[in-house]
Amino acid sequence: MAAPLRIGYQGEPGAYSEAATRALFGDEVEAVPCDTFDQVFEQVESGAFDRGVVPVENSLAGSIHRNYDLLLQHTLHITAEHNLRVSHCLIAHPGARMEDLRHVYSHPQALAQCEQSLSALPGIEIHATYDTAGSVKMVKESGDLTAAAIASARAAEIYGMQVLVHQFEDEKANYTRFVAISREPATPAPGVEAKTTVAFAGVNRPGLLWRCLSAFALRDIDLSKIESRPLKGVPWQYVFYVDMGGASQEGPGKRALDQLREMTTFVRVLGTYARADSTLVDSEQGQGE
Amino acid sequence: MAAPLRIGYQGEPGAYSEAATRALFGDEVEAVPCDTFDQVFEQVESGAFDRGVVPVENSLAGSIHRNYDLLLQHTLHITAEHNLRVSHCLIAHPGARMEDLRHVYSHPQALAQCEQSLSALPGIEIHATYDTAGSVKMVKESGDLTAAAIASARAAEIYGMQVLVHQFEDEKANYTRFVAISREPATPAPGVEAKTTVAFAGVNRPGLLWRCLSAFALRDIDLSKIESRPLKGVPWQYVFYVDMGGASQEGPGKRALDQLREMTTFVRVLGTYARADSTLVDSEQGQGE
Repeated sequence: MAAPLRIGYQGEPGAYSEAATRALFGDEVEAVPCDTFDQVFEQVESGAFDRGVVPVENSLAGSIHRNYDLLLQHTLHITAEHNLRVSHCLIAHPGARMEDLRHVYSHPQALAQCEQSLSALPGIEIHATYDTAGSVKMVKESGDLTAAAIASARAAEIYGMQVLVHQFEDEKANYTRFVAISREPATPAPGVEAKTTVAFAGVNRPGLLWRCLSAFALRDIDLSKIESRPLKGVPWQYVFYVDMGGASQEGPGKRALDQLREMTTFVRVLGTYARADSTLVDSEQGQGE
Repeated sequence: MAAPLRIGYQGEPGAYSEAATRALFGDEVEAVPCDTFDQVFEQVESGAFDRGVVPVENSLAGSIHRNYDLLLQHTLHITAEHNLRVSHCLIAHPGARMEDLRHVYSHPQALAQCEQSLSALPGIEIHATYDTAGSVKMVKESGDLTAAAIASARAAEIYGMQVLVHQFEDEKANYTRFVAISREPATPAPGVEAKTTVAFAGVNRPGLLWRCLSAFALRDIDLSKIESRPLKGVPWQYVFYVDMGGASQEGPGKRALDQLREMTTFVRVLGTYARADSTLVDSEQGQGE
């Protein structure tokens, strides 16, 4: 029997990145936790991992620029995407009671996303940590019945802890977009709706971006994301990130990229992959979907 | 004598937001610390504050979407901008020695920006907190000579603490863009280079953004920032944020916005203000610049 694929993600077991890994690759793969995003990229590049799974944007917090930087720094390819509904649980020891809680631990972003729910709990002390699932582990090891963590239902399950409140987040429309990265590019099967992520830059003058976007607009190509970002070390110059409908290898998508190259100093296709179903997948639901 | 202007900012005294407040309004105003960005907006809107100062983007971490949301939710105006160079110090008690340090406290973003510097200190335990300046206050109150915080030089000064290392950040090109918000719009003086921040949205179809940008490109108007963001509660619809050169009240800027209104369902001018000097101001240097 072939060895299972090894897929790297950042965080502890039970992290949202692990849920995204399962949603993208199923339960048969070996999902390997890493301390940092850098490690995920390095291990995929070196061949130690077959794939990596990293978040690129959150619907409330915006783009995760660190991972866009790492995509530019490494010669890897985006081969798939997944939109994960982020649903936080308030998690404590089995037998712990809401009215006894005095401390809540989680990542600052998760704490911020549960601000109103937390303010409804009187006399609670809030503690910021590095990781959602790691906070559950910490509360578990402390043995403290007055402490709780905010993390996924899956993290509660892994550490044998109790979910006191499901959907603890203030805003239910909270999802994170993850991408799979690989040493080899993907070619979506015929009939599958493709999507391509491109980075480009050009000499900054009025109308630059408009001329670049004409490559897509004149071919009726849909753009689902655009963002400008200062180019490191070059003041007042920008790199643009665009997600376009279609493949980079053929058809109007290929011709649009050819035109884009004429008008820019730098074009990098970060990957062509199947467009994720617009139905958002709930992190509390099974990974078998 | 007239009472000094009251300017709200988020954070403790010594926070980078306070430095931006001083850089924008000088030392004569009353800078009022607030717990949250929401409070800054609410108090300006109610008239309790004359102005507010909030960060909108960081060169490493990207846009601070919470404040773009708050700009849309409130009927306030951006009246000024300032680029603050973020320079972190490692701060401990007077008499504390580098070799005795065991704990470092700061906001997770500041910790991440000093990752390499921190990894050069062996045997250090790292603790995430809510606030940079607040961490200095905490270390001060603990009396612990083995603890340090990462924050601005100004925070060290305010709490009578010692700077062990200046420029502790890994990447020196780290700056945050702050804007001033007010109940009344500003009109930049004649001869001052103006800049305008606009939010807009339209019915999503291929080429929408390109048609919108033609309003600026056909008039040679420079765009210094563009970003798309999912519209809350409306899946697969986007709001675009653009910073354009020029004023919204007259000339090509006004005509571009008129054309933009024809092609969109929603246009909101968030403010016209004097373009900040492209020379970045160092947070460690005086506020008198």
